[in-house]
Amino acid sequence: MLRVGIVGALGYAGAELIRLLRGHPEVKLTILADKLEKPVALSSVYPQFRGKLDADIEPADSERIAQETDVVFLALPHKVSQEYVVPLYKAGKIILDLSADFRFDDVTTYEQTYGVRHLDPKLNREAVYGLPELFCEAIKKARIVAVPGCYPTSVILGCAPLMGKEYVDPHSIIADAKSGVSGAGRSPTPATHFPECNESLAAYSVAQHRHTPEIEEKLSALAGMPLRITFTPHLVPMNRGILSTIYVKLKSMVDEEAILKRYQQFYQEAPFVRVLPVNTLPNTRAVTCSNFCDIAIVVDARTQRLIVLTAIDNLVKGAAGQAVQCLNLMRGFPETAGLL
Amino acid sequence: MLRVGIVGALGYAGAELIRLLRGHPEVKLTILADKLEKPVALSSVYPQFRGKLDADIEPADSERIAQETDVVFLALPHKVSQEYVVPLYKAGKIILDLSADFRFDDVTTYEQTYGVRHLDPKLNREAVYGLPELFCEAIKKARIVAVPGCYPTSVILGCAPLMGKEYVDPHSIIADAKSGVSGAGRSPTPATHFPECNESLAAYSVAQHRHTPEIEEKLSALAGMPLRITFTPHLVPMNRGILSTIYVKLKSMVDEEAILKRYQQFYQEAPFVRVLPVNTLPNTRAVTCSNFCDIAIVVDARTQRLIVLTAIDNLVKGAAGQAVQCLNLMRGFPETAGLL
Amino acid sequence: MLRVGIVGALGYAGAELIRLLRGHPEVKLTILADKLEKPVALSSVYPQFRGKLDADIEPADSERIAQETDVVFLALPHKVSQEYVVPLYKAGKIILDLSADFRFDDVTTYEQTYGVRHLDPKLNREAVYGLPELFCEAIKKARIVAVPGCYPTSVILGCAPLMGKEYVDPHSIIADAKSGVSGAGRSPTPATHFPECNESLAAYSVAQHRHTPEIEEKLSALAGMPLRITFTPHLVPMNRGILSTIYVKLKSMVDEEAILKRYQQFYQEAPFVRVLPVNTLPNTRAVTCSNFCDIAIVVDARTQRLIVLTAIDNLVKGAAGQAVQCLNLMRGFPETAGLL
Amino acid sequence: MLRVGIVGALGYAGAELIRLLRGHPEVKLTILADKLEKPVALSSVYPQFRGKLDADIEPADSERIAQETDVVFLALPHKVSQEYVVPLYKAGKIILDLSADFRFDDVTTYEQTYGVRHLDPKLNREAVYGLPELFCEAIKKARIVAVPGCYPTSVILGCAPLMGKEYVDPHSIIADAKSGVSGAGRSPTPATHFPECNESLAAYSVAQHRHTPEIEEKLSALAGMPLRITFTPHLVPMNRGILSTIYVKLKSMVDEEAILKRYQQFYQEAPFVRVLPVNTLPNTRAVTCSNFCDIAIVVDARTQRLIVLTAIDNLVKGAAGQAVQCLNLMRGFPETAGLL
Repeated sequence: MLRVGIVGALGYAGAELIRLLRGHPEVKLTILADKLEKPVALSSVYPQFRGKLDADIEPADSERIAQETDVVFLALPHKVSQEYVVPLYKAGKIILDLSADFRFDDVTTYEQTYGVRHLDPKLNREAVYGLPELFCEAIKKARIVAVPGCYPTSVILGCAPLMGKEYVDPHSIIADAKSGVSGAGRSPTPATHFPECNESLAAYSVAQHRHTPEIEEKLSALAGMPLRITFTPHLVPMNRGILSTIYVKLKSMVDEEAILKRYQQFYQEAPFVRVLPVNTLPNTRAVTCSNFCDIAIVVDARTQRLIVLTAIDNLVKGAAGQAVQCLNLMRGFPETAGLL
Repeated sequence: MLRVGIVGALGYAGAELIRLLRGHPEVKLTILADKLEKPVALSSVYPQFRGKLDADIEPADSERIAQETDVVFLALPHKVSQEYVVPLYKAGKIILDLSADFRFDDVTTYEQTYGVRHLDPKLNREAVYGLPELFCEAIKKARIVAVPGCYPTSVILGCAPLMGKEYVDPHSIIADAKSGVSGAGRSPTPATHFPECNESLAAYSVAQHRHTPEIEEKLSALAGMPLRITFTPHLVPMNRGILSTIYVKLKSMVDEEAILKRYQQFYQEAPFVRVLPVNTLPNTRAVTCSNFCDIAIVVDARTQRLIVLTAIDNLVKGAAGQAVQCLNLMRGFPETAGLL
Repeated sequence: MLRVGIVGALGYAGAELIRLLRGHPEVKLTILADKLEKPVALSSVYPQFRGKLDADIEPADSERIAQETDVVFLALPHKVSQEYVVPLYKAGKIILDLSADFRFDDVTTYEQTYGVRHLDPKLNREAVYGLPELFCEAIKKARIVAVPGCYPTSVILGCAPLMGKEYVDPHSIIADAKSGVSGAGRSPTPATHFPECNESLAAYSVAQHRHTPEIEEKLSALAGMPLRITFTPHLVPMNRGILSTIYVKLKSMVDEEAILKRYQQFYQEAPFVRVLPVNTLPNTRAVTCSNFCDIAIVVDARTQRLIVLTAIDNLVKGAAGQAVQCLNLMRGFPETAGLL
Repeated sequence: MLRVGIVGALGYAGAELIRLLRGHPEVKLTILADKLEKPVALSSVYPQFRGKLDADIEPADSERIAQETDVVFLALPHKVSQEYVVPLYKAGKIILDLSADFRFDDVTTYEQTYGVRHLDPKLNREAVYGLPELFCEAIKKARIVAVPGCYPTSVILGCAPLMGKEYVDPHSIIADAKSGVSGAGRSPTPATHFPECNESLAAYSVAQHRHTPEIEEKLSALAGMPLRITFTPHLVPMNRGILSTIYVKLKSMVDEEAILKRYQQFYQEAPFVRVLPVNTLPNTRAVTCSNFCDIAIVVDARTQRLIVLTAIDNLVKGAAGQAVQCLNLMRGFPETAGLL
């Protein structure tokens, strides 16, 4: 059994990691930790675990974590995460980092986007972007994986099969994404206060969300040319789920069937992508608490645009589940282990 | 006092008409009616009116309605509505029709879109499209007004100031609209069953929603050229409100300030359009139960796109409130009478 | 026109006071204030007021408030409120205090319940409990009114007609109350963070909520004997509304009709209490944004218990609306002025 | 592997049975059926199963079901269920019936409560009430189990440890229960239409809900004397979960610690009952999608009442999970198999 630790167990992605890893056949959770002064009982924060896992979340100490684990999942805010990643990696651990710290090929983009210095650009070069549907082989060989978050996962999986296709204008991508509130994390804020966000709907960070450069870097690499996209996130009064509605200009008319075939082929080896049949649209309920990404395509022949719709659970395929999927690849477990 | 009747009082738009017209200083509600076999007490359907308006909703009979009213609001499904509009108009009534039956300049488009025959194409030519911010003068002179619904109002008000502007590509419009569930009406359906739509999010009628041709007809007229748009409606788990996120390609770069100025000027006489200051985004909560349309613009300089965001209450500015606003113009009342 | 100020305009009850008083025919809002270092624009906190009331909320300064007002509404936390009430009262203002500071006849109970010292027990004796359905005459003569909050209003109005009735055991009252989240105020907390309280339901402060002694003091006075009740509040994932389900033991069997008659008579002069007909149950939606209290009674003959159900909007009849209703009585305006 | 069929797979309890039994190590789902004219794809009704279980729900035919199964779960409406139970039982199948048809010891009470005739009173005598925490030994020997639903489970588990205790007045029980909307089933109705029940709260079937006689029959047996309770169900705007707040009069004062100890002992062998520590209250979120029942007790010393709070997931411990737990006992599997 692999000894696994979670740093950042207080947050929603951390709790989801606990839920999934508890049920993973090859894994034993040996330590739960977070930025804390003193231990707190897991069940006092997440009462759903009472009687299932009666453990404490402990103050995160890299040395102790290194001693008790073979693998460490980090579900910490950016910048904080690298402070743990670097020593744990040097201590020989396998790292799955859910923060943004190691997601960028170009450290400069990271530093500009997040306004912080990267602690270890050299290590950054070793990190693999943890989107298994696209980078499966690299993940298998990696010892450090930077797991992408919810928005990039939902947009990149929606666009990837189109990149490099002549019939698509890659510069025309507009992604209109709608997220449940758990995506904003576990810290109370005015924007996530129930009476404020319930029965309301709003966009935020329009034209300046920091996931945009991350999406662009990955899509540019796939397209083989520098791309810019328009990305608009919205906050929806529900707990979980992201629906992204993606608009792409078709340079020549291609019928829906041909594009659907392309998507089916592209994802035929991907156990967690469900390309929906014609006339079936995704909804976030259908993927709640699962690691699936549902994708539908619609051709708007009148305007010669392709509309791609993707739905994921932001905390599973958009965070914890994707991290577990990466671990499965890294260690040669079945890709779906602990995830179905 | 104007004697006013409401046909379609059972529906959500009908109830909203009752709420607004009850508080209107120039109006007396003389009859509430709907397609019914026998009368039902208003308070049994809408208990909020108990003790405020203890009336019955009666079976809709055109002759009786004609006798008891000067003005008739019709909040009925398309096709059904025209069956009442035609005789009531002929009986000399002022008509405010909230259905789609008289919204199209081109009857053929109406007939194709809705799959029904129009009963009176000649009368259709007299009907004015009841969007006061654009057609104020025509509404003032009209005796029959076809009040636009929620999606067209939110999209057309968002795009109108751009039509005819050289710096905008009018063929590039993409409107991604998100609606609360009351927009689907008062009849229970699987899609609006609480456990199905709560905690879920989905698009519907992608690339084929029947409000698209209506929006296109009006924007084409404003732009002076035939336009096609991509319009995607979504169902959001909240009761009221529509947020439309509209994407338009800029042919040349224009700064945010200049465009904001354009919107402010365009709507400077419009008491119900609030063009939001820079860095302020609309949310549906801010317009709930009001007749306001909040509009914000953001220039995405990196992609040379303009993002317009509009928020309305689908039952007020998107239905009943807009109808009352039209009545105010038609009768020379202050435009805001009964609406603030 | 009465010059009216609101201290505590930042909170939800404050915002509701603004909404109601803006529409009140006899009132002019002259100052909005709160505990602040510097002014903030009302529309930046409550964007619904943009274009309707473009005022600032100012730092609360008792002297300045005294100069600019005839009447002051205070929607502040307990203990803070009395610091403003005392000087404003001494400056001759009419006071409507929505805090708990002047609600108790017995200052000792107040001090024990809230763990603070009362600043002015003498002034406390002049304050009248602002529940118009019970204390109408005293309110008319008062210069300072302590407006009861949501839970006490919903429970006391439900029980009052039974107090002193021989067929009821006054010591048997159990009130199971369920509140929307706005009742918890505008400050974000873990308990009101959307992903925590959405899709969840819980009781809180069981057997120790501080509204219990307030309810008991008032019901004891009505019953003419000291009473204790069991009161259990619950937090429900919705914005507004309180439903209280109240259980009372019948000492002798009385039929539903007789009790209903009692309620109808008791509230026959009360414009905001709607005693529902037999077989009709209240729901919070029917009172949302209104000052009504809907009451239903059901006799459980099998167990010889009476079940009383009451519904109010916690921010209107449970706060701001009730305060306005008190003002109307104090100044001889129609009791419903500004409230229908 | 046990061959298991589900009749009533279209409903929410049916879908939950599919979810749980798919993950059960000793079970193979061989047939999904419901009252249908022709087969429908499971994924068209419940898209979450797409790619996990791509089966059809078939027209329910008792003969065919008998051939393909060893065990049958029936999640059908009362009265309809017995039409399948009787022939399937006679065909030698093990029966887990989630309807009310075999829950009553006294067939007359059943017939009066549900207004239908019982098809097989003799078979009814063989059926065991499937509440494992109370009837474990009988369930182990049963071939037909009548699985209790959500309200009875939440109330009976909350009261059982008190039955027969001298310090409790068994005639004083009042259960105020609050349920999520999935408890109302999958058929759209006006009461469960999203805009009607969202942002609203109401009681229903006050003093006449048909689960009352069922609860009374079971508690009376435990108490050894005939009891009547007051039971009030409420509909809460959330998908899942039931919270029951139960009030019981203490005949003599007993301290919280002693009662807590009683509950802990009573449920010490029960893997799915979590008696919460002092000062910890249950919430429905903590049991969502799990088979746990969380129980807390609070003594209101001032009024000498005990308040018991229980939380379950209405579709799991209140339906499908409980049925699986019964199967585990009937077949000698670990009680928690497939449920953690």
